[in-house]
Amino acid sequence: MKFGGTSLATTKLIETAAARVADIHHEGHELLVVVSAMGGVTNQLVGYVEEITQHHDLMEYDSVISAGEQISSGLMAIALQNLGVPARSWQCWQIPFRANSVHKNAEIQHIDTTAIVANLAKQRTVAVCSGFQGLTEENRIATLGRSGSDTSAVALACAFQADECIIYTDVDGIYTADPRVVDDAHPLKRISYEEMLELSYLGAKVIHNRAVSLAMAYNLPLWVRSSFGDERGTVITTGDNEMEGEIVRGVTCSQEEAKVVLSGIQDQPGRVASVFTPLATAGINVDMIVQNATQQETTEVTFTIPLNDVVRCKEILNNLRENIGFHDLVIDKNVSKISVVGIGMRSHSGVAAKAFQTLAELGINIQAIATSEIKITVLIDRKFSELAVRSLHSRYELEKAG
Amino acid sequence: MKFGGTSLATTKLIETAAARVADIHHEGHELLVVVSAMGGVTNQLVGYVEEITQHHDLMEYDSVISAGEQISSGLMAIALQNLGVPARSWQCWQIPFRANSVHKNAEIQHIDTTAIVANLAKQRTVAVCSGFQGLTEENRIATLGRSGSDTSAVALACAFQADECIIYTDVDGIYTADPRVVDDAHPLKRISYEEMLELSYLGAKVIHNRAVSLAMAYNLPLWVRSSFGDERGTVITTGDNEMEGEIVRGVTCSQEEAKVVLSGIQDQPGRVASVFTPLATAGINVDMIVQNATQQETTEVTFTIPLNDVVRCKEILNNLRENIGFHDLVIDKNVSKISVVGIGMRSHSGVAAKAFQTLAELGINIQAIATSEIKITVLIDRKFSELAVRSLHSRYELEKAG
Repeated sequence: MKFGGTSLATTKLIETAAARVADIHHEGHELLVVVSAMGGVTNQLVGYVEEITQHHDLMEYDSVISAGEQISSGLMAIALQNLGVPARSWQCWQIPFRANSVHKNAEIQHIDTTAIVANLAKQRTVAVCSGFQGLTEENRIATLGRSGSDTSAVALACAFQADECIIYTDVDGIYTADPRVVDDAHPLKRISYEEMLELSYLGAKVIHNRAVSLAMAYNLPLWVRSSFGDERGTVITTGDNEMEGEIVRGVTCSQEEAKVVLSGIQDQPGRVASVFTPLATAGINVDMIVQNATQQETTEVTFTIPLNDVVRCKEILNNLRENIGFHDLVIDKNVSKISVVGIGMRSHSGVAAKAFQTLAELGINIQAIATSEIKITVLIDRKFSELAVRSLHSRYELEKAG
Repeated sequence: MKFGGTSLATTKLIETAAARVADIHHEGHELLVVVSAMGGVTNQLVGYVEEITQHHDLMEYDSVISAGEQISSGLMAIALQNLGVPARSWQCWQIPFRANSVHKNAEIQHIDTTAIVANLAKQRTVAVCSGFQGLTEENRIATLGRSGSDTSAVALACAFQADECIIYTDVDGIYTADPRVVDDAHPLKRISYEEMLELSYLGAKVIHNRAVSLAMAYNLPLWVRSSFGDERGTVITTGDNEMEGEIVRGVTCSQEEAKVVLSGIQDQPGRVASVFTPLATAGINVDMIVQNATQQETTEVTFTIPLNDVVRCKEILNNLRENIGFHDLVIDKNVSKISVVGIGMRSHSGVAAKAFQTLAELGINIQAIATSEIKITVLIDRKFSELAVRSLHSRYELEKAG
C-alpha cells in the first residue's frame, strides 16, 4: 500500500491512511506500506536548496529532500501503533534498499528483504518504508526522481512477491483525460501496462512510468485508487481481448517541459550523440527527440526537457558549443505536449491523421510530431492545451470508453 | 564550530553561518561543523507526533525528529560549496556516530573518525555533521535529548582532538543572569566547567550540561559565542585563581519543570528506589530530589521533572502505586527553580543564608531547598520568578562580576 503526499498532507490525513492500513492488517494480510513525504514538504525542501543556489551538489540535495520521507514514515508508524497495529519505519539505509549513484534520478539496484521479513514475522509487524530514497555504494542517499515513491512501492512489492500493489492517491483512477479540462473524462476500470506507460510518461501525473514498467516486468497487478473514497479505482495489468476493441484510451497533456531547438549542427555521425550524452550524464531527462534536415549541410534537432532543468541544460550545451558545433540554441518554455494513447491504434490506420486534422481545423500549429506504435504526440503552443485536449477527447469519442 | 537552530533559522542565516565557517577554513584550519535543525523545525516535527498521540513509540519519534538535522546539514554543505569551500554532510549512520538505545535521551558511545578523516584529507573538505543524533546497535537513530547538538559538537571535538570547540548561538556569552529579567546582567569573559555545569543544568539555556561535562573530562576549551556579532564570547575552561575572589557567578531560573510530591510512602529501605528506577528507565530526567520525613511511619518525597514528561510520569507512578505504596501524588506545574551558583561559595559561609534572607524579605515562600558545594537551589511559586532573580542578582552584587 503506497500513499502519496496529498494523502499524507496533514497528521489527520496520515491517521486516515493508517486506518486503511489497519483494516487490511486486521483482515489477516501481511503488508508493507510505502510513503511519500507529507504534501508540500519536498517542495519546501527543494525551495530551501534553491534559495541558496541553483547549482547545488546533487548528493547534498538528495540528503536534504529525502528527509521528508523519513518524517512521514515515522509518523505513519506512530499512527498505526496508535490504532493497535504493530509497525515500524524503515529508511533505505536500514533495509538496505540499494540504488545507483545517479543522484536526483537514481535507479533501484537491490532490495535486501532479510531484515524486514524477520520483522514482519513478529506479530505481522507492518513495515513502513520511506519511498523515493535508495542507499548508494558510497553509503549516501540517492533519490529516485520526483514521484519515485511509486517506483519504490512497486520494487518492494516485487522483491517481497506481493500479490498486488495499491497506489493510494488523490484521484480515483486513470482517466481518459484530465477531468479539470474535459467534462466527460472518467476513470477506466482497467488499462494495460503499455498504455499506462504512455499515459504516465506523457503527463497523466497519476503514476510514475518507472513504476508501471517495473510492475509490467514482474506482472504485478497495480491498483490506482483514491485514498479519499471507496471506489476500487483502476487496475493496471496485462492487456486482454476486451481491450482490443478500443482504439484510443486517453488524451494527455504535459506542460512541464520546455522545447529545445539546436540548429546549424554539422550533419555528421556522432554529432547527435555529443548533444545527448552530456545531458544524460547530468541526469536530465530528454524526451521527444525530433531531427529535421533543414538545409543541406547542417541539421536541426528538437527535443524536450523538464522545465526545471532548463538552466542546467543551457549551461551544459553552451559549454559544449564548440564540441558539438551548433549554430543556435533556442529554448521555448511556452509549449504543451499533447498525446493520444491506445493499444488499439497499432492495428488501426487513420488514428494519427484524425489527430492532425482535428488540430488543423482549430487552427493550432503543430511544432513537432512524434509517433510510436501506441501513441501520437504533438508539441503545440501552451495556450491551446485545453482546447486541443477537449477536442481530441471528443473526436475519439472517449466519453464512451470503459 | 557548532551552530544552533536560531543561527540556522532561514537559508539566509545558514549562508551567514557558512560565511563564518569559510573564514576559518581560509585561515588554513581543518574543521568540523555541527548543526542543529533549522530553528522551529524540531518543534514542528514534535508537534506532528503529538498531534497523533502523546503515547508515541520513542524509536519512531527519534526517527521523525532527527530528520531536521539531516535537512540543515545538507543545506550547510551546499552553502559552503557555494562559497567555494569543499564540504559534505554526515549523518550519524554514515560516520558512524554511535549512541545507546535510550531513545529521546541517548548517550554517545563511540565516534568512528576513519571516514571523516579520510574525507578531511581531500582538500580539507569540511565535515558538516548532523548534531543531536546517534546510531544505535539496532541500526536505528536515537536522539540525544533536546539541545543534544551541543553534546554532539563537544564529542566530535574530543574524538578528533580539536584545539577548541565553538558553540555559535543567539547570545554573546554566559550571563550573570537572564538579561531579559535583570537589567545589569552581562556576559562573563570566562567561567569554570563546574560553575557552567550548574548554570546550564539549572536553566541558563545557553549550553547543554552534558556538553560541558564532556568538555571538562577532555579539558577542551569551549566557547559560547554569538553567531550574529563579533564579540569573542565566554570561554568555559578550568577554574583559575582569578576566579577564586568571586563568590557568586550567576543567578538562574528554570520554569520548565514541574514539582512532583509523593506522600504517604512507607519509610522503608528500597521504597525511594522503587520510585526513581522506573522513571530513569523511561528516560525521565528527575532533578532536585528532596525527602522529608513528615510523619513517623511514612515519608514524603519531592522532586522535579521536565514539564513535557508530566503525562508519562503520572502514568508510570499511578501504575506503580501498589508497588511503591504511596498515598498521594501531587504534581504542580506552576513552580520555578531559582539557583545561585559560584565556585567561591564552597569556601565562604553565609552565601546560602543571604539567599534565604532575600526571599524572606520579599515574602516569597520557599517550597523546597537543595544545596551543593557550588550552588543553592530553591523552588518557589512561578509568579515570583523575576522578582527573585533580580533581587538575588543585586544582593550578590553581580552587576560588578567580570
